[in-house]
Amino acid sequence: MSEAVAMTDDEVRQIDAYWRAANYLSVGQIYLLDNPLLREPLARRHIKPRLLGHWGTSPGLNFCYAHLNRVIRARGQDMIYIMGPGHGGPAAVANAWLEGTYSEVYPEVSRDARGMARLFRQFSFPGGIPSHVAPETPGSIHEGGELGYSLAHAFGAAFDNPDLVVACIVGDGEAETGPLAASWHSSKFLDPVADGAVLPILHLNGYKIANPAVLARIPEEELVQLLDGYGYRPVLVSGDEPASMHRKMAVALDQALDEIAAIQHAARTGGATGRRRWPMIVLRSPKGWTGPKEVDGLPVEGTWRSHQVPLGGVRDDPGHLAQLEEWLRSYRPEELFDDEGRPVAGLRDLAPAGELRMSANPHANGGLLLKPLVLPDFRDYAAQVDKPGTTTAEPTRLLGRFLRDVVRANPSNFRIMGADETASNRLGDVFEATDRVFQGERYPTDEHQAAQGRVMEVLSEHLCQGWLEGYLLTGRHGLFNSYEAFVHIVDAMFNQHAKWLKVTRGLPWRRPIASLNYLLSSHVWRQDHNGFTHQDPGFLDVVLNKKPEIVRVYLPPDANTLLSVGDHCLRSRDYVNVVVAGKQPALNWLPMDEAIAHCTRGIGIWEWASTEGGADPDVVLACAGDVPTLETLAAADLLRRLFPDLRVRVVNVVDLMRLQPSSEHPHGLPDAEYDALFTTDKPVIFAFHGYPYLIHRLAYRRRGHHNLHVRGYKEEGTTTTPFDMVMLNDLDRFHLVMDVIDRVPSLGGRVAHLRQRMADRRLELRAHTREHGEDAPEVSDWTWPY
Amino acid sequence: MSEAVAMTDDEVRQIDAYWRAANYLSVGQIYLLDNPLLREPLARRHIKPRLLGHWGTSPGLNFCYAHLNRVIRARGQDMIYIMGPGHGGPAAVANAWLEGTYSEVYPEVSRDARGMARLFRQFSFPGGIPSHVAPETPGSIHEGGELGYSLAHAFGAAFDNPDLVVACIVGDGEAETGPLAASWHSSKFLDPVADGAVLPILHLNGYKIANPAVLARIPEEELVQLLDGYGYRPVLVSGDEPASMHRKMAVALDQALDEIAAIQHAARTGGATGRRRWPMIVLRSPKGWTGPKEVDGLPVEGTWRSHQVPLGGVRDDPGHLAQLEEWLRSYRPEELFDDEGRPVAGLRDLAPAGELRMSANPHANGGLLLKPLVLPDFRDYAAQVDKPGTTTAEPTRLLGRFLRDVVRANPSNFRIMGADETASNRLGDVFEATDRVFQGERYPTDEHQAAQGRVMEVLSEHLCQGWLEGYLLTGRHGLFNSYEAFVHIVDAMFNQHAKWLKVTRGLPWRRPIASLNYLLSSHVWRQDHNGFTHQDPGFLDVVLNKKPEIVRVYLPPDANTLLSVGDHCLRSRDYVNVVVAGKQPALNWLPMDEAIAHCTRGIGIWEWASTEGGADPDVVLACAGDVPTLETLAAADLLRRLFPDLRVRVVNVVDLMRLQPSSEHPHGLPDAEYDALFTTDKPVIFAFHGYPYLIHRLAYRRRGHHNLHVRGYKEEGTTTTPFDMVMLNDLDRFHLVMDVIDRVPSLGGRVAHLRQRMADRRLELRAHTREHGEDAPEVSDWTWPY
Repeated sequence: MSEAVAMTDDEVRQIDAYWRAANYLSVGQIYLLDNPLLREPLARRHIKPRLLGHWGTSPGLNFCYAHLNRVIRARGQDMIYIMGPGHGGPAAVANAWLEGTYSEVYPEVSRDARGMARLFRQFSFPGGIPSHVAPETPGSIHEGGELGYSLAHAFGAAFDNPDLVVACIVGDGEAETGPLAASWHSSKFLDPVADGAVLPILHLNGYKIANPAVLARIPEEELVQLLDGYGYRPVLVSGDEPASMHRKMAVALDQALDEIAAIQHAARTGGATGRRRWPMIVLRSPKGWTGPKEVDGLPVEGTWRSHQVPLGGVRDDPGHLAQLEEWLRSYRPEELFDDEGRPVAGLRDLAPAGELRMSANPHANGGLLLKPLVLPDFRDYAAQVDKPGTTTAEPTRLLGRFLRDVVRANPSNFRIMGADETASNRLGDVFEATDRVFQGERYPTDEHQAAQGRVMEVLSEHLCQGWLEGYLLTGRHGLFNSYEAFVHIVDAMFNQHAKWLKVTRGLPWRRPIASLNYLLSSHVWRQDHNGFTHQDPGFLDVVLNKKPEIVRVYLPPDANTLLSVGDHCLRSRDYVNVVVAGKQPALNWLPMDEAIAHCTRGIGIWEWASTEGGADPDVVLACAGDVPTLETLAAADLLRRLFPDLRVRVVNVVDLMRLQPSSEHPHGLPDAEYDALFTTDKPVIFAFHGYPYLIHRLAYRRRGHHNLHVRGYKEEGTTTTPFDMVMLNDLDRFHLVMDVIDRVPSLGGRVAHLRQRMADRRLELRAHTREHGEDAPEVSDWTWPY
Repeated sequence: MSEAVAMTDDEVRQIDAYWRAANYLSVGQIYLLDNPLLREPLARRHIKPRLLGHWGTSPGLNFCYAHLNRVIRARGQDMIYIMGPGHGGPAAVANAWLEGTYSEVYPEVSRDARGMARLFRQFSFPGGIPSHVAPETPGSIHEGGELGYSLAHAFGAAFDNPDLVVACIVGDGEAETGPLAASWHSSKFLDPVADGAVLPILHLNGYKIANPAVLARIPEEELVQLLDGYGYRPVLVSGDEPASMHRKMAVALDQALDEIAAIQHAARTGGATGRRRWPMIVLRSPKGWTGPKEVDGLPVEGTWRSHQVPLGGVRDDPGHLAQLEEWLRSYRPEELFDDEGRPVAGLRDLAPAGELRMSANPHANGGLLLKPLVLPDFRDYAAQVDKPGTTTAEPTRLLGRFLRDVVRANPSNFRIMGADETASNRLGDVFEATDRVFQGERYPTDEHQAAQGRVMEVLSEHLCQGWLEGYLLTGRHGLFNSYEAFVHIVDAMFNQHAKWLKVTRGLPWRRPIASLNYLLSSHVWRQDHNGFTHQDPGFLDVVLNKKPEIVRVYLPPDANTLLSVGDHCLRSRDYVNVVVAGKQPALNWLPMDEAIAHCTRGIGIWEWASTEGGADPDVVLACAGDVPTLETLAAADLLRRLFPDLRVRVVNVVDLMRLQPSSEHPHGLPDAEYDALFTTDKPVIFAFHGYPYLIHRLAYRRRGHHNLHVRGYKEEGTTTTPFDMVMLNDLDRFHLVMDVIDRVPSLGGRVAHLRQRMADRRLELRAHTREHGEDAPEVSDWTWPY
């Protein structure tokens, strides 16, 4: 372990040169189309026609990068760098190029003058690279386009990586977001023995886009109280004079790394238990540091005006052009790059070597490190099913047993996240194999709380999602279980992760990572304890807007299908899998071998429930989701009794994507197969778990679409019984029978009295429920009678 | 102002009786079907068949309610009560009944034995009331089903209500959420002169559903540092012995109210400027306080086991039944309720009178206080349009001028929220009339920052939304402007607000409130500075899942239509209005009178752009959104040149709901009108702002739906030029022409070379963009040439 010794003047000069080089390369990316080394006077033709990018945060990002490199070299420290202010893309790219990684990944952007010209031109340029720290950026696992998730990603990366330090810049803008504000508490879930460390660097440059930032404008004493209260020991580094800032930052980083090492050493040699205060750094430096001090008489450096492009008129205003040239030359490029445009040897030596370069660290390309999960045979957890619909199981409880053994077989690369709902979602058997991680004070009345564990529960869907993303992006596996309605809290995070995956699909050097698996239980139809606020199946609609090659949605109708789907999802790569499953005792429909076959097809006719006898049906009853399947089968039973001659086909859908045309989604059924299942001319009554429009949206191009009638959740609900819920939304078995009567022409007029009998029965059942406070046994204890 | 004097023994006995009554009523709601006053021994038949509800938090909510009543009476304080742990619905209902409000609102639930029986039975009962603090609960503006928003709602309610104190219970579970963690900083945006006060009560009972809560398990010193750091002065109240807790809480509340009054007095009499530390209370009390200590040998009171229903087996286990009876009788109901079951006089006197009752405070039924906005004539802000498509305007800039004058005319009941994007979204003219509120330190380099102002900017969409909801629910008006992609951050909050509005529609006593207005600018098509992370038009899909009577979506194609739509939204009530509009300079299409007519219809044929001459068209070009409208008109121009005889109809859609059948949405076009616009048999090429499926979803029941071909955002994007973006998604004018060629049979084979010319032109334009870094003048400077 090194000691915190003051830098020598030489070291200051060296690190300052490195910083100047990164700053020069950052400004160059924003402005220059040509003349990258300023070998000739800067002219209009050297300037990009559209000036796009964010300068303000870039010098601070570069400053930290240079200093982190110093401690990496000094200590051989394994470290990755998460840049919360991801709009500072030029900084990340500049450093990757300085370290040589950029040219290794993208050989056409060589580490010389020609490559530098390409580096500059491609930035924010059509056909080039994005303005943010994007998947295209080597060393990045965090784009930062949408602010709030840097620190959660950092902790996710640190879990189960005991030798890794994750440096994480938190911008003072991002620090105002809710997810970031909650993320500070992640340290209560990090184990100094088995996990790595996160080094937060709160970078206060005072401004957001146009406004002051809150944390930059409270008294320093209050800020320190806040960070102390979050459980950190802040080290303050403030100023704007480069040489003294270099010295202060070096001392601060050495202190912080020493403290991290001391905490880990104490914990790992058994001397220390209990939570510690981890170090962090507060860096106060001017926004747009080293950029133009004033433009057109208005202050720029140190103000919000430096947020994007400080000199906007460079192409048309000779004064701006001259000021840009002066700014660029202030970094003295002639000292930094040799005749061929390569960083001079003294600079190259300041970068760490090989995989210690943060831009080349394999943790930031997690697929490189990914090991497949060791999975027990999910068939061993099956519910016994001799006859459909006569025995019951709690599907998620069976999955929980499987997950328990997944945990046992994968003690350090699999985690289950949840917002305090793992037991409530009936996955509780996992606690036979592991505990919930918690570093706060523990009481005897607690259950399954420990310093280490595979289950992470915090009442923040943002943290669950952010931790899991960070964990997956660094090459591990996991599952997020959530109440269905509240997964909407992370709609935006899901969007961003799906976008990330979509872009990585086009980058062969980014290796596939484990899929992000959602288990949505406590779903819309069984919110018995809660009510309307807990009833929302709309996450599926959000998911289906993302690229078809990324997203998968599964609605297993019973326990064995859930096991089969669960196993499949844990083996998959680069997807977002959404599984919706019940936790309440529910009828089992399929023995395991049939469940596997059904899940493999993703959709199929349930012949044992159908009465068509292989002939053309008169009507198709389709269903997706556990409760809709139950109601559909009960409707099929009613139809069998009421209309013995009616040919009814029951189709169950597990894999929602099968409904889309094969031209739209890789899982889409070819039209001929769709038509063979649903017919092209017979009425289809589709009982769906979610909002009914979604089925129309998926199937609107199918030939028989005009015959498709969908029942689903129509935003009616409250605290009531399960059957009352389906009645409120016209998804109940009696209403499905009425739908059949309304749509099968051969039944039509003859059976008005039967239709009325169904309608009356609904009213009677509702009256029963309202009188007795529970569903009638007729519906609550119904089993498949054949 | 009262002094903090210790309670007398008599006062303790009185307040404890009130608390016991509320606790009794809470337990009764969870368990009892009958025998509400325990006038006979408790028997199985008195117990509800399904035991649903949350006991754990209820005694704490009741404790605070009783004590807040004390200070309301003592000071005549105007106060409302926000219960973050909204699952403690029994507590809110119990207190409303004790105060008499419940029976005033719902006369059938009278304040006597018969009413008490109804009160108990209806709770979490089919046909009854929800288990949460729902819209049905008098005195509530906050349901709390989804945790995280209590404190933001509280601050929203306090803004511009200088005499109001909003007491806000923050549960230790909710405190872990991101939105809540950020909400503490709301005090930096509250003005002690013109705003009221928020009194946060952090209620630490140690557990969430099954896990310890973070803030309850950190050392008290650390907790105090955290709250100090958030800018508060915490007063601690800890214990479990009722009498001493009553004394401590009374002192704490008197202190807190005194401090609030002192801060306000100092600020309002001009003596004090700058931000102050507001008081808050930390209440540590056992979860499930006064409930069963142990059940079946396991600890319950003070543990997670008291979260929902502590005695689960009451109907089948005589031991549990006896324990419930003992628990209920421990509150000594015979002392609390008279022979008729009314609260005894001593209790009734402890409740405040009239509108000072928190359950009857008009601020919690904001429609009662709502005053219409004074609106300037939006026509006065019109862009001059002599000829379509030849002059340009920045639509949001014109709206900004209108809003500037709305601000001037409504200085204390209208606010604009935004995540640091008000200027970026080009609404900056509002700063001629007002400032951004900010109570942090202000520097000379800041612009438009002041202690008071109508604009609230914080880098948290959660806070923007939460503040605005609280502001609207208490009877005021506002607008939330956001980058389109990042409004997904509040998907879940939108869902909950829409659900709240839906339920209030069925409650005549809840008066209509102002609509929640979203202005989504910096939209998917013009993320020139950013890129893929900033490109997501999917909020519309989320919105359309909610009840049609609540949601409205507008896509004004130019400046004048935006003004017309903006005016309309600010006048509306009980809706969520979503307006998507551009901020970049864009062509003006309609003079103001035509814009008004077009917006009034919501959809219409643009005859000046069509070539059908009133005859049947060969093809319909439909469009919704500013960029799709531009591309559609450019395509119409191309078609006019390429195929002079082709009869093209251009239809523009402002009000997206017009596409739905009138049976599905109040704004839906009758089928005959839809058919008259779109034809039933001609190809319709629809250029849409968002994901194309949304149009199919809205129009799938229309006769001509199989002829509908939609272009929209298909999740392709990066940092590039505007025209490259539309090309990436096949929404560009050339592709629209190709779509027409592909679908108009009379053109078909003859014109393969013209189709090829279009395809080639696209490649040339892309090559131009990639070479020059900007769009060719042909597309970037295109104007309507007729």
